[in-house]
Amino acid sequence: MKITHIEHIGIAVKSLETAISFYETKLGLKCYAVEEVFDQKVKTAFFQVGQTKVELLESTDPEGPIGKFIANKGEGVHHIAFATEGLQENLDELAENGIRLIDKNPRKGAEGLQIAFLHPKDTLGVLIELCEKSK
Amino acid sequence: MKITHIEHIGIAVKSLETAISFYETKLGLKCYAVEEVFDQKVKTAFFQVGQTKVELLESTDPEGPIGKFIANKGEGVHHIAFATEGLQENLDELAENGIRLIDKNPRKGAEGLQIAFLHPKDTLGVLIELCEKSK
Repeated sequence: MKITHIEHIGIAVKSLETAISFYETKLGLKCYAVEEVFDQKVKTAFFQVGQTKVELLESTDPEGPIGKFIANKGEGVHHIAFATEGLQENLDELAENGIRLIDKNPRKGAEGLQIAFLHPKDTLGVLIELCEKSK
Repeated sequence: MKITHIEHIGIAVKSLETAISFYETKLGLKCYAVEEVFDQKVKTAFFQVGQTKVELLESTDPEGPIGKFIANKGEGVHHIAFATEGLQENLDELAENGIRLIDKNPRKGAEGLQIAFLHPKDTLGVLIELCEKSK
């Protein structure tokens, strides 16, 4: 397993508009992109903070993963995404080491990344995403 | 307000030993320091992941902040720490902009940093720490 850096931190918010305003006007960060990820039922907004991005996530459907997360837990950190090299090999290694995977194979995420989620029951309460730039 | 990067992500865990083992053997990261922060009633373990650290936090007292967090919410992401320049000025600016502060003045955190927490009720569900290297 090779992790190079933290690619982004995913934060569930009720309103992207309110949250973008907070991160821009109070924290002085700059939103550089807004993107809808249809199969995840979210609209996302990205802020570059040094090497890592903050990814704000607003649900477009109460039955989507972010809609359910906010209904259960309220707004807050949803996942941490580690940038890896050799994503499929890393997933296979984790599975061999007894870590359950939400995604056994990489799928397409925001910003054209290949992504996969690990099962939070095996990762000490943190929803972990692994990601890799598409080749 | 000037944020330069994400200094660390603080993650509440029940057992530092179990969590260090997970991050080292499953994710391939390397713990480079363990430190007790007495006034926060925690033992911490640090992993460098690119520019950002993962800080694992185990409570040393059920009445401490991490002990209470785990009792209420279970293990998971506890806070995000943004590295800033001009910490006191940034805190004053946030207060003027209507953001409540847990720490109106910087105090000493782990690794010799000056730190201050913002009130999560004013930061859309994320407990935000600002920090700066001691001068």
